[in-house]
This record gives sequence, structure tokens and C-alpha cells, in this order.
Amino acid sequence: MEKSKYQQGLDKLMEYTLEGNDEVSTHLKISEDLEDIAPDVGKYIIEFAYGDIYSRDGLENKQRALVTIASLVTQGTEPQIELHINTGLSAGLTKKEIVESIIQLIPYTGFPRVLNALTIAKKVFEVREEESAE
Amino acid sequence: MEKSKYQQGLDKLMEYTLEGNDEVSTHLKISEDLEDIAPDVGKYIIEFAYGDIYSRDGLENKQRALVTIASLVTQGTEPQIELHINTGLSAGLTKKEIVESIIQLIPYTGFPRVLNALTIAKKVFEVREEESAE
Amino acid sequence: MEKSKYQQGLDKLMEYTLEGNDEVSTHLKISEDLEDIAPDVGKYIIEFAYGDIYSRDGLENKQRALVTIASLVTQGTEPQIELHINTGLSAGLTKKEIVESIIQLIPYTGFPRVLNALTIAKKVFEVREEESAE
Amino acid sequence: MEKSKYQQGLDKLMEYTLEGNDEVSTHLKISEDLEDIAPDVGKYIIEFAYGDIYSRDGLENKQRALVTIASLVTQGTEPQIELHINTGLSAGLTKKEIVESIIQLIPYTGFPRVLNALTIAKKVFEVREEESAE
Amino acid sequence: MEKSKYQQGLDKLMEYTLEGNDEVSTHLKISEDLEDIAPDVGKYIIEFAYGDIYSRDGLENKQRALVTIASLVTQGTEPQIELHINTGLSAGLTKKEIVESIIQLIPYTGFPRVLNALTIAKKVFEVREEESAE
Amino acid sequence: MEKSKYQQGLDKLMEYTLEGNDEVSTHLKISEDLEDIAPDVGKYIIEFAYGDIYSRDGLENKQRALVTIASLVTQGTEPQIELHINTGLSAGLTKKEIVESIIQLIPYTGFPRVLNALTIAKKVFEVREEESAE
Repeated sequence: MEKSKYQQGLDKLMEYTLEGNDEVSTHLKISEDLEDIAPDVGKYIIEFAYGDIYSRDGLENKQRALVTIASLVTQGTEPQIELHINTGLSAGLTKKEIVESIIQLIPYTGFPRVLNALTIAKKVFEVREEESAE
Repeated sequence: MEKSKYQQGLDKLMEYTLEGNDEVSTHLKISEDLEDIAPDVGKYIIEFAYGDIYSRDGLENKQRALVTIASLVTQGTEPQIELHINTGLSAGLTKKEIVESIIQLIPYTGFPRVLNALTIAKKVFEVREEESAE
Repeated sequence: MEKSKYQQGLDKLMEYTLEGNDEVSTHLKISEDLEDIAPDVGKYIIEFAYGDIYSRDGLENKQRALVTIASLVTQGTEPQIELHINTGLSAGLTKKEIVESIIQLIPYTGFPRVLNALTIAKKVFEVREEESAE
Repeated sequence: MEKSKYQQGLDKLMEYTLEGNDEVSTHLKISEDLEDIAPDVGKYIIEFAYGDIYSRDGLENKQRALVTIASLVTQGTEPQIELHINTGLSAGLTKKEIVESIIQLIPYTGFPRVLNALTIAKKVFEVREEESAE
Repeated sequence: MEKSKYQQGLDKLMEYTLEGNDEVSTHLKISEDLEDIAPDVGKYIIEFAYGDIYSRDGLENKQRALVTIASLVTQGTEPQIELHINTGLSAGLTKKEIVESIIQLIPYTGFPRVLNALTIAKKVFEVREEESAE
Repeated sequence: MEKSKYQQGLDKLMEYTLEGNDEVSTHLKISEDLEDIAPDVGKYIIEFAYGDIYSRDGLENKQRALVTIASLVTQGTEPQIELHINTGLSAGLTKKEIVESIIQLIPYTGFPRVLNALTIAKKVFEVREEESAE
């Protein structure tokens, strides 16, 4: 049953990323990387974050992605900014929507956090273009 | 010309809040409150935040409101959480969208910031209901 | 089955607070207060925080309480500092352990966060003394 | 000897606040308030903060006050913002210098922290005017 | 007219950095780097930060630099700490004033942020010495 | 006498790390690295942090280590997370206690800070295993 909450989370992640297998892999890789010291944390991300929270009604996936990015930019947690810009693109956000959401934060967090996030966004966009060009 | 950027910001704020005169008044009241010690700050909010940033293309007003609320909840700046939940409702967000956006932040900021923001949201909703009942 | 994870969390909270019914009530009151706008958040606290995280092996309850307080003091989220100083006392921490843990943070967060947390601790201690004196 | 470091800190605080006895009292009151649960914290403020740090060469007192206020505004620790705006005025900063320093932070922390700090500054200025009018 | 605000900001940046062409270049490079995804952000830095905020009366340039550095150290935004230690030196701050301002923050933000900032300061000082030795 | 407070701090650091000479060296290396620009900061760490704060009664060394790690994870100051996971192991914490303390913070700071800290913990554990295998 525990497993079924996990499955529910995994299904949500699949649907959320429009079957973006790269994104699902990236999320599962977190579990693998921490397999030896903290094997449950990846499970909690799938079960609690995706199974419980992302699976709720009342917001579209793209709205959830924008809200998540805004919080991460505000905190300045860079590896997650990179992950969720990628995930957001897979969830259907346009590059423009992501860039504008980050710019929208200038009046609320100031330029430094925004500039650092835009630098990450630029890198993510370039990597994805290279990959799709291959 | 300076004035025209101010007017542009004010027009944006009017449009943003669907002519929500209460919201415009609240924003202008910030200027009034700080009139004696920092008269320009209210002007910068109208000119820079609304005239430059909110006036950009590429995001709907409701998206800007969600992104703003997510950043403020993450920072825990309570007077602004209250103001922008109000402003977000005027911009067309439903209560459900606001509540879900705050709940979406549990995996990213933890329960404390979320609980404090939901407590503020509850109060804002009650005040608006009382006012609309009068 | 969902319910069983909830029950597991509730049992943990009971054991954690040494059957401290006041603490359990306080935690359940969060659910009640948010019943109308966000009824699931209290459930997530019981299920995920207490059912999943606090129920893990490898740390004593008192260690979990210290770690929690240290994080909240660092963030400065005052209502939760108050709640978890109370919960920590119910979990078996002494006042001295709580005060020393807060003082330990001076070199890591500076005096402001520490002073604000000690002011809250003082109030919590006084309220509990009054209550136990009744 | 311990005592002599304390005396050194107290002397620095006296000199820093231009013999502003109110400011010294306020700092000593922190010790008194925490006398019963954490009597050493007030001592550490005098010995370490004022005896070691503020007593260093290379910055004028007014510069130390500006730097301190900038950090507190950025953190949003409101009781200390209030205390150090008061202390800064006693150290010789003008109201204008304090207000301008807070406004200077808009591009770096955004409007919310700045607005909350200006609201506190306004209150501090009013209280001091009332007191000096008596 | 927009352009004239931009020119005003650029003039201020020139004056602020004592015609430090390297600093001006660094600031303009931000615009270039983000040219493709967010071309307006560099413009906002010149127009709003330098044209509106830095151009205000009531603080000397060196005071603005100290306040800015204090906020960035408190936030721990490392690329901007590096940039503004450089800019501060160009604005006339001595190395000693910068180091002392960072040390002044130990009682307010704790050792971690201060140590990370001093490590950056050391690197900036070394790079500038190498450059001036060439 | 100043020196005696330094000696007291150094003795505490020795005892704290169970004569872990590597840890003592690492702490002293901070002083050396900053010798040229800020020679006193390493002294303050030994005197104030270890001599005054860590030397207090009322908490075991392992409790001080847990509280410290919890605060650093919450702030996301990565070089210090690495240092204090190392120091905590030397102070007698098990890997499991450290990992569980970090996981305990998911409900309070969210997944991002926790994932970044676990990644650091994994690296520290690996380095120490390699070293002890030599």
C-alpha cells in the first residue's frame, strides 16, 4: 500500500513531465545517489511531494512549476533551480514564462538572486538546445 | 516624463487589480505612510515594480500574482503576504488557487512558512467576506 | 490505509510527547484552525512529519526535538519556535538543554535570532509554570 | 580579567553611543530580561560584540552602525532593527543617513524588507521626537 | 527619455567607480551575458539601481558600497559579494574598511557567512594585486 | 590572559574532537588562510565559539554538534556543513545520527536544503573511509 502511494507519485511525475523520461530519470537518480546513506529520501520525494502535493486539485501543472521555481529562486538553492527549470519546461512552461517569472521577482528579492537564477536558466536552455540538436 | 512612467505604473496597477480601487488605495497608502521619511519609495513601487516589471509581456497577471505570493511565503514577510493575497484575489486568482500555491511550497520550504502563510490567507478571506457582506 | 499512516503518526506524536495531551491537542488544533481553507495540511503534518519522519530509527526523540528547535531558531519562525519548545519539553528535554541549544547558535546565526528565541523560551517556561502551579 | 573585557565592552558601548545612557540601559536590559534563563548572553554581547568587535580599528562608529543596520534589514529581525536604528542615531547617524541606507537595499533585498524596516524607522523617529519634546 | 534615465545611471556608475572602466565593463557584461534570454535586466540595473537609487542624495558613495556589501554578505550571494567588493574598492573603500565591515557582521550573522565572505575578499584582493603588478 | 581564553578554547576543541588532530588542524587552518587579511577571526572562533560557547555546561558535545549541523543545513552554508559533519563525527556522532538529523529537517526546511546537505555528507563519509583505508 505504501508502494501504491509511491506508484501514485511516480504516475504523477510521469504525467507532470509529459512523459519526459529524462526528468523522471533525474528524479530517480536522486534516490540512487543517496541509496547508500539515505535511501528513503528519494521515496519521500515521490510519495509525499509528487504523490500527495503535486497530485492535488486546484492548480494546473504549469502553475505548480512556476510557484516552485519562484520559491527556489528566492532561496537561492542552485541545484534545485536547475532541476526545476528543466522540469518546468517538461511540464509545458515556455522559456519565456520561466524567464519572466524570474524577472518578476526583482522587486521582491532584489537583483542578486534573480541574476544567479537567470544565469542557471541560460545554461539549462543551452544544454537542452544542444541535446535536441543532436 | 518621469511622471509618465509613474502614470504607466498606476495604469498597470489599475488594470492588474481589475480596477480594484481598494488595492490601488492600499498601494498608494504605502506612499502616504512613508511620505515624511521616504516619499520616493512609493513612487519606485509604482514606477519600477508596476511600470517596468508588471507591465512586461509574457506572463498573465494571475501568473505574476502566484509567483509573487510564492516568493513572499518563502521569505515569510507577513505584511506583504497579506497585501499580495489581497492583490492576487483582485487580479483574478481564486481562493483555491492561492491556498494550493501555498500548500505546493511544503516540499520546498517546509511546514512553518506554509502554516504561517495559510493563517494569514484565512484572515484575508474572512475580512473580504465580511466586507462583501456589508 | 491512508488512515493507518495517519494513526501511525498520531501514535508517534503521543509517544513523542510522553502522552502530553496538551501537545497533541495543539497539533490537532492546527488542523482545526485550517479546516475550512486547507483541511489536508494538518493531516500531512501527522502523516508525513510524525508518521514518516519522526517515526524513523536512529535518533532519540530528544535529539529530534533539539534538531528541530535549532532549525526553527535559525529561520526565526516564531509561532513554531514556541510550539516546539513546548513539544521539546514534553519530549523530555530540560529547560537547560533548550536554553543551551539556543545559546549554541550564537556563533552560527548571530545574536538577533538567539535573543528573539530566548525571549520566546522565557515566555513558554513562565506559562508552563503558571499552569503547573494551578 | 574576564571582568576587564566586560568593562572594555561597556566603555566602548558608552563611547559608541556618545554617552547615550538610554542606549546603554537598553543593552543592559537585555541581560536583565534574560537574567533568569540565560544570564550570560547579555555578558557575551558586551564582551564579544562591543569588547572585541566594535572595539576594533579601521571603521568609524557610524560606519559600524550602518553596516549593522544593513544586515538586520536584510534578515528582517525587527526588534533588533528597532534597537540599532536607535543606537545608530546615538552613534551620530542622521535620520537621513539611516533612511538612505535602508532605501539603498531595495536593489539587493527587494521592497518587502525595505518597507518593513522603514515602517520601524518611522516609529523610532516619532518616539524620539516625542521624548525630546517632553 | 527612457534612454536618458539609462544615461543617468551609466553616468552615476562611472562617477561611483571613479571612472573605473573595469567595473563599468563588468556591470555592462551582465547585460551582454543575459542579452539573449533577458536583455532588459542589465538595463534595469543601470536605470533603477544606479539611475534611481545610487543617484540619491544623503549618503556618500563609500557608504552606499558598505551597506551593499553588508547586505550581500548577510545573504551569502557569492558572485555579487565578489562584484561589490571590487566595486567598493573602485568607489574608494580601503581593503581594511571592507574587511572590517565583514568582521563587524560576526555578531549579527555568525561566523559562517563572514568566513565565506572573507575568503572571497582575499581572492579579490589577490587578483587586483596581480593585475596592478602587471 | 587573552591568551588563556584562547588556550581554553583550544583545549575545548581538542576535547570536543576527541583529540582529533585533523579537526583541530582544519580549524587552525582557517586562521592561517585569513592570516594576511583578517588574522583575528580565527582567534575569535577559538576564544569565543570554543572558549565561551562550546565550553558551557548543560549539553553534551554530541548534542552541540547536532544543533550546529541543523543550523548550518537550514542556512545552506556548504563549506561549514562539510566542516561540521567532519567535526561531529570526531565528536562521537555516528553517520546514522548525522544523516537522521538532516532528514529530520525535511518538514522544517523542505527537500532542497536537505538534499544538498546529504550530498555533502555522502562526500565527507567517502573521504573519511578512503583516508582510514590508507
